[in-house]
Amino acid sequence: MVAPSSLEALIEALRCLPGVGPKSAQRMAYHLMQHDRSGARRLADGLLLALEALRHCRLCNTFSETEICGRCESGKRDARLLCVVETPVDMNMMEQTHAYSGLYYVLMGRVSPLDGIGPRELRLDRLLARACDGVVQEVIVATNYTNEGEATAHYLSEMLKNHGVTVSRIARGVPVGGELEYVDAGTLAQALRERRPLAE
Amino acid sequence: MVAPSSLEALIEALRCLPGVGPKSAQRMAYHLMQHDRSGARRLADGLLLALEALRHCRLCNTFSETEICGRCESGKRDARLLCVVETPVDMNMMEQTHAYSGLYYVLMGRVSPLDGIGPRELRLDRLLARACDGVVQEVIVATNYTNEGEATAHYLSEMLKNHGVTVSRIARGVPVGGELEYVDAGTLAQALRERRPLAE
Repeated sequence: MVAPSSLEALIEALRCLPGVGPKSAQRMAYHLMQHDRSGARRLADGLLLALEALRHCRLCNTFSETEICGRCESGKRDARLLCVVETPVDMNMMEQTHAYSGLYYVLMGRVSPLDGIGPRELRLDRLLARACDGVVQEVIVATNYTNEGEATAHYLSEMLKNHGVTVSRIARGVPVGGELEYVDAGTLAQALRERRPLAE
Repeated sequence: MVAPSSLEALIEALRCLPGVGPKSAQRMAYHLMQHDRSGARRLADGLLLALEALRHCRLCNTFSETEICGRCESGKRDARLLCVVETPVDMNMMEQTHAYSGLYYVLMGRVSPLDGIGPRELRLDRLLARACDGVVQEVIVATNYTNEGEATAHYLSEMLKNHGVTVSRIARGVPVGGELEYVDAGTLAQALRERRPLAE
């Protein structure tokens, strides 16, 4: 087949997107070139602008266009609390609760030996330095309750305790609105083990 | 939330890709910016290059970097046969059969009234001019056997016959290797209606 090389190159380049295989990439390329050239241009511009502008906040490690992100710089948050999350999405989820007024540290990943991601790759030394700044009094570990998130929490907890930092973990149990009938046995077992005394 | 505007813009721009909703776009943007910046740059370059280089072959309407694509220009194909397909992917499928040596015309779409795509949007006048060049002796309609593909075939057939062009349609029936037990009733009914005499 006599395929234009620029089209082949575009299809190949689209495969860098997560979850996009050869068929999807082909469909995307044809769609953009046939039906949405202005969208393709906006996407190219968006990529270049983001590559140029985005870096990581020096304090919380999330994406930021400035050395220190707006949230860390605002001064309106409780600097004694530091919540550790895996991703910026998780941070947004925490914010949407309107139940937390402290600061964050975004790992931008999780400990995952199978993927070759260990403490060094996550640069946990930066988190340690952040937690030991003399202002932080408690680190709340809010990594996922998946195997990898749990392993990360365990590692963080050991590391921080060894440096005298108070560490806590978000609670695990029956979801709000959840019915016991539909909660899996593992969750229910944990909720039972981690039961709390009721105030009178 | 204090989100960097370049990140928001990238997420929005990624939504021009077919099948990509807000959640996927966010995941893609975070992935590119965190884990694959070189991939993001290749994608931006690929988009810009394709936008710059790709146009449509003047003869067969497929994507091409030159005014006339390599296949149309080769002179090795049978110019008396013109096969009409919906997309470049369909053209590739036809080529993979190694059973066709004629030329193509790629509609780059199909008649689809619900999407506001009629004969004018498909620019079928260009196909008509191509089919009436004095060399083409038969137009083989190879649009899909979907409702829209069938409607397109019907429209094309009427249009071309009115101009004295011989039109044929690829056969419909039981797939090669197919067992009657697993073929749907509609296909089987068609295969029965369109049965062919067996040579002695």
